[in-house]
Amino acid sequence: MQSSTQMAVMNSKPIGSGSSLGATAERLEQQIQFLLEIDRLKRVERQSILTDASRRENSAEHSWHLAVLALCLAEHAAIEGIDLFKVVRMLLIHDIVEIDAGDAFLHDATEQAEQAKKEAAAAERIFGLLPPDQGRELMALWREFDDGASAESVLAQALDRVQPALLHEATEGVIWEKYGTTHDQIQAKMAVVGRAAPVLWGRVQDIIGKARTAGRLR
Amino acid sequence: MQSSTQMAVMNSKPIGSGSSLGATAERLEQQIQFLLEIDRLKRVERQSILTDASRRENSAEHSWHLAVLALCLAEHAAIEGIDLFKVVRMLLIHDIVEIDAGDAFLHDATEQAEQAKKEAAAAERIFGLLPPDQGRELMALWREFDDGASAESVLAQALDRVQPALLHEATEGVIWEKYGTTHDQIQAKMAVVGRAAPVLWGRVQDIIGKARTAGRLR
Repeated sequence: MQSSTQMAVMNSKPIGSGSSLGATAERLEQQIQFLLEIDRLKRVERQSILTDASRRENSAEHSWHLAVLALCLAEHAAIEGIDLFKVVRMLLIHDIVEIDAGDAFLHDATEQAEQAKKEAAAAERIFGLLPPDQGRELMALWREFDDGASAESVLAQALDRVQPALLHEATEGVIWEKYGTTHDQIQAKMAVVGRAAPVLWGRVQDIIGKARTAGRLR
Repeated sequence: MQSSTQMAVMNSKPIGSGSSLGATAERLEQQIQFLLEIDRLKRVERQSILTDASRRENSAEHSWHLAVLALCLAEHAAIEGIDLFKVVRMLLIHDIVEIDAGDAFLHDATEQAEQAKKEAAAAERIFGLLPPDQGRELMALWREFDDGASAESVLAQALDRVQPALLHEATEGVIWEKYGTTHDQIQAKMAVVGRAAPVLWGRVQDIIGKARTAGRLR
């Protein structure tokens, strides 16, 4: 660590709260530990499949896709003045808890409560790897996403519903059919899209309607 | 499209330049076409391997990882006042050209020039799927990243070098060894890290030093 601490002196820029050489080095190692840990999100499989149906999507590439959706589709948000960077940050970190808790597509209330507990513990552990101030920041962002009360979290949650619908349309809804998803279950999941962005909600209704007509949704 | 256009009236928010109902629907379809096209980035393989060495990383999940690196490591930037959202946006879209041009890890100048041509054509085609104003915006962002002249692009490029170094350290540098990468080649690639964030540069030098000692870097 000799070289990096020397560089910190040359740089001589206040970092975090303390900013002694040791503190900088310690922060960096905590950040690296977190960044290597979240590499595991690349191995968490989702139900959705890629547009060429070659394999399932993983939660890391899904998070990337959502962040780009946000950049392209934010103009359709019902509420103006949304903090788009916050939406993007939420989408980048919202699935990290799946490293411990897995990706669940649950409709049962008891199972959902159990899953919520697992995810809260995962957030504590994984964001807890970071320097405390950064850990708290990402934890707050994750909670805000999960609560779905702010305008930013409503849009972020909506995009998280729209993206699989687009993949389902591109792959002719084979996954909805495979898992025996019902029309009511999908509509319950999609309600947030109507609040976030009516234009996107209309588009998603077209997708659901087509899947129903094709007999892929019960 | 009936439902979505009705919703646009209810929303009655100016969108883009024109904002008639037909224009909104057309913009959305262009955006969706782009968003489905970039799904292909999930199938572009990179040289780097995951931390558990189970498989190669793809460029979509790599882009996600870089965006989270930016959120966590931006405090180490040598220049203050960097627009972090711009860095994140650059990192999210910087590899999209690889859908047509592939991921190249080139050290030869002639090959690099050839690759640059392919990437420019890819950017024109893929960003060209978007509504013109958005396409121009992402194209400008991609060019800024590629030029590496702005403070934001220097930091973004640096993170794009730091992330594989961290994966190499976690996997004991097997990929550098496999491809016969030389010390000079790596140092040339890493120069931008020194300019962007000396603390990270020091850390990367430790990784390179260890790989060299272990005989994994010629």
